[in-house]
Amino acid sequence: MATRIVVLGGGFGGMYTARALRRRFGRKAEIEVINAQNYFVFQPLLPEVAGGSITPAHAVSPLRFVLDGVFVRKAVVDSVDFERKVVTVFQGIQRRPTEVPYDHLVIALGQGTDFSRMPGLEEHALKMKTLEDARRLRGHIIEQLEHAQVTELPDTKRGALTFTVVGGGFSGVETVGEMKEMIDRSLRFYPKIDPSEVRVQLIEFAPRILNEMPEPLADYAVKHLERHGIEIKLRTGVKSATHRQLVTSDGEVIDTRTIVATIGNAPLPVVQRMGLPLDKGRIPVDRTLRVAGHENVWALGDCALIPLKEGASERTDFAPPTAQFAVREAKRIAANISAAVRGRELKPFAYASRGALASLGAKRGVATVFGHNITGFPAWFIWRSYYLALLPGIGTRIRVMINWSLDMLGARSLVQLKFYEKPPLRYVYYRAGDRIYNAGDRSDGFYTVISGSVEMERPDPETGETALRVIGPGGHFGERLILGATRRKTTVRAREDCKVLVMNREEFLMLAEGFSAFREYFRPYMEKRGVTLPGGDEDLGR
Amino acid sequence: MATRIVVLGGGFGGMYTARALRRRFGRKAEIEVINAQNYFVFQPLLPEVAGGSITPAHAVSPLRFVLDGVFVRKAVVDSVDFERKVVTVFQGIQRRPTEVPYDHLVIALGQGTDFSRMPGLEEHALKMKTLEDARRLRGHIIEQLEHAQVTELPDTKRGALTFTVVGGGFSGVETVGEMKEMIDRSLRFYPKIDPSEVRVQLIEFAPRILNEMPEPLADYAVKHLERHGIEIKLRTGVKSATHRQLVTSDGEVIDTRTIVATIGNAPLPVVQRMGLPLDKGRIPVDRTLRVAGHENVWALGDCALIPLKEGASERTDFAPPTAQFAVREAKRIAANISAAVRGRELKPFAYASRGALASLGAKRGVATVFGHNITGFPAWFIWRSYYLALLPGIGTRIRVMINWSLDMLGARSLVQLKFYEKPPLRYVYYRAGDRIYNAGDRSDGFYTVISGSVEMERPDPETGETALRVIGPGGHFGERLILGATRRKTTVRAREDCKVLVMNREEFLMLAEGFSAFREYFRPYMEKRGVTLPGGDEDLGR
Repeated sequence: MATRIVVLGGGFGGMYTARALRRRFGRKAEIEVINAQNYFVFQPLLPEVAGGSITPAHAVSPLRFVLDGVFVRKAVVDSVDFERKVVTVFQGIQRRPTEVPYDHLVIALGQGTDFSRMPGLEEHALKMKTLEDARRLRGHIIEQLEHAQVTELPDTKRGALTFTVVGGGFSGVETVGEMKEMIDRSLRFYPKIDPSEVRVQLIEFAPRILNEMPEPLADYAVKHLERHGIEIKLRTGVKSATHRQLVTSDGEVIDTRTIVATIGNAPLPVVQRMGLPLDKGRIPVDRTLRVAGHENVWALGDCALIPLKEGASERTDFAPPTAQFAVREAKRIAANISAAVRGRELKPFAYASRGALASLGAKRGVATVFGHNITGFPAWFIWRSYYLALLPGIGTRIRVMINWSLDMLGARSLVQLKFYEKPPLRYVYYRAGDRIYNAGDRSDGFYTVISGSVEMERPDPETGETALRVIGPGGHFGERLILGATRRKTTVRAREDCKVLVMNREEFLMLAEGFSAFREYFRPYMEKRGVTLPGGDEDLGR
Repeated sequence: MATRIVVLGGGFGGMYTARALRRRFGRKAEIEVINAQNYFVFQPLLPEVAGGSITPAHAVSPLRFVLDGVFVRKAVVDSVDFERKVVTVFQGIQRRPTEVPYDHLVIALGQGTDFSRMPGLEEHALKMKTLEDARRLRGHIIEQLEHAQVTELPDTKRGALTFTVVGGGFSGVETVGEMKEMIDRSLRFYPKIDPSEVRVQLIEFAPRILNEMPEPLADYAVKHLERHGIEIKLRTGVKSATHRQLVTSDGEVIDTRTIVATIGNAPLPVVQRMGLPLDKGRIPVDRTLRVAGHENVWALGDCALIPLKEGASERTDFAPPTAQFAVREAKRIAANISAAVRGRELKPFAYASRGALASLGAKRGVATVFGHNITGFPAWFIWRSYYLALLPGIGTRIRVMINWSLDMLGARSLVQLKFYEKPPLRYVYYRAGDRIYNAGDRSDGFYTVISGSVEMERPDPETGETALRVIGPGGHFGERLILGATRRKTTVRAREDCKVLVMNREEFLMLAEGFSAFREYFRPYMEKRGVTLPGGDEDLGR
């Protein structure tokens, strides 16, 4: 029977591994790629998607187009049984687990994020890991411009027009540059926004940005970004975030509705569940890219810790998590799996970086190529050409080229294809003093206090006096919407810093209608407050 | 002070009204368009978006690009106070209502849908009203192909490969044609799907399709669609739908995971809330397009009932809800508002249709132009040219043309940009006998029975016997996930036809963690079943 090689993940590592395996084995092996999406994402172009210079469809290729002869399975990996040599996955709508057997397994699942040391960041920051993240960021920026154009509240306008990117690596620098360019080019359609009201900033914990690049290039990048009106804050960390503010390690409180976090790499839950020992959050492999203690398990890309020499210990002794390296690692893994199957000797992975590239927006970039430092338009031009050449498939290349050309001609489209609504059930952080809602606001949800406390102000309609009620952990408010209330009668503020669980109006009413225990809980509760809940199962007004 | 004219809605009616007003008034009036999206949707191209021959961004234009000199407010209309001449809206993230005053108001909000006479259709059918609908349909079709490629369950495969469109009007016919073309062109990338396994059908209640067109053209359309493998069922209605089946008025039960409903027009909730008298679900206006009893309120497009002659009573006496008419109505409204402001005489709306066009997919169409019937490729070519000419903005026109050309060259992209997950809280319909879940399945949610009943089978691990429990309205099941269970221990089937409320695992656990009354409800409930819920607030395992 043909050797079965299963590759987990369809990014740079996984996709190129499958292609290299296919070339080596031809039809002599069954090669399968399992990926949650049916497309390969060209990660380096995500900032361009966020900035709208290319459309999302052009930053990706369908895996089926680029993996001819490889079985592509769109599925979510649940677990791996290394003993039985079986991967368990869930496919699409199906809740029944499916088992996929393998002879050799390649793990190329990439990295996730962990913001747990910065309360509120997970809930309130946007990420830049996936295509959806990039699209969401673009829609979010347009939402802020639309809102700033119509609001009459100065605080709201300031928050909407302050954009904060956290992390000064490649992703953060390219994202902040693209964001600023998009905003600058869009402002003429928003006559009520004065350019001086827009604030775009980059926050980096280290004393410099673009740590992987030579210092003169980083200096050039800083100057370029600052000249284009981007503030750069070095030696600055994030302490916490709320739905409308960012608190830095200096204690500065920034009113901002847009926090883009490009920091905090961590192993994905599925990698953690595999039970392999992790080092620095990654799967350690030997120099042949094989996972210690497993003859037939391999790992590469961002999820693997790959030594570049014997006795590696320093950060620079290991392969960096870049596309450039992943593509080379893929070739080595394919060769080594082929050698292992044929009983030949495995070879160690060896590769020296050819350089690094970063785009800064506004047709400028920085590049180091074979030791030469290049800045400005030439660097940007190299950047575009290099990535255009790397895009898989001639069709995609032509489309991206055409779109880049069209982008230089006219205004960028401001179409906000989807307004990404907040999830119906979510955690929200507030700082002491923040208003949660005002009397007269739309009744949009039901709130439960998780930690901290809030205070509710309610004017007595007869005496005109204001009654104050403090609600602490476990308490809740906003439940009057079960009566069909559409506007708030009270004002609620955070008394201390707090975390609340919010359930949207519609979901709250569905649950109250459908789950009688939930509804019945509110009856005595409301009665104690002098409100009689309509009786029976039927007449709970919406 | 300048006259303030507020237009509700940015579709064909609203957008063209604002443009015509701007031309008539210049800077002498403040013209404002309020729309929930910041773009104008070119409705006739939605089937092309669903079929992937153009990308979503090309079927729309940013309102700010096409409405120079008009104030565009991206906001959701809540209500209108005709006495105070004020529109109340909610803007973006803001929960505080905003009041927008007007001197003249134009209502151009379009129509919604109402499936209430067909249980399960609202919950389980896809629509084709908005750009998001078209995108979702495309993603959904790709999801079915991906799933059919990997599943080993014949029933699942059959359901995934059966596609049903309900409604034989323009929208239904064009959608079914585009869907079939997209599937046909994609199958070579799905080697495990045999073309004979794909079933695409169109269901129409009337004895013929394309009711607005001459009969010979409808006959041609039927022949063309059938030749391309589309089944057409006439004189067939929909009785009900479940998450995996459609029941027709004949009692036929069709296994299908894809139901596209292009039927069931109804007034939007916001129009209903206005308190205007409605006729046939629309706002009746006089022949000058003014709303009866309101000097300064006008309506047009799909939401208005517009008589084409005095004493109109037959369906054909009123303007049809098409883009062609909306554009003409817009011009008339702008002229009449101008006349009203200047104290001149209003003129009645008069327009005779120039013809009708429909695309059938595979480069074929039907057209009636000034009384001439045209079929096949020429009709399709006229269709494309006409809509290309109608697209607002030369930039959009060029982009659509380029994309159409690229589409003819190669395979359509199979990228499924977003897997549209089911809402975390939703109603699901099952027919008697349907399996809800099996022992061993992933524990993905918590279920409450709304109507009908289910039966739960649980094998006793000691005796091997199976215990059966019937759960009726108000009862619930699946709550063991509060204990951290990841796989089902029981099998649940619908005992009668039933409707259940499903809450996703993650949201259920968030609520159980955050809202103590919810969690505490389960403690005695689980104990009665011999399970002790971990104590305290802290250690509820996820």
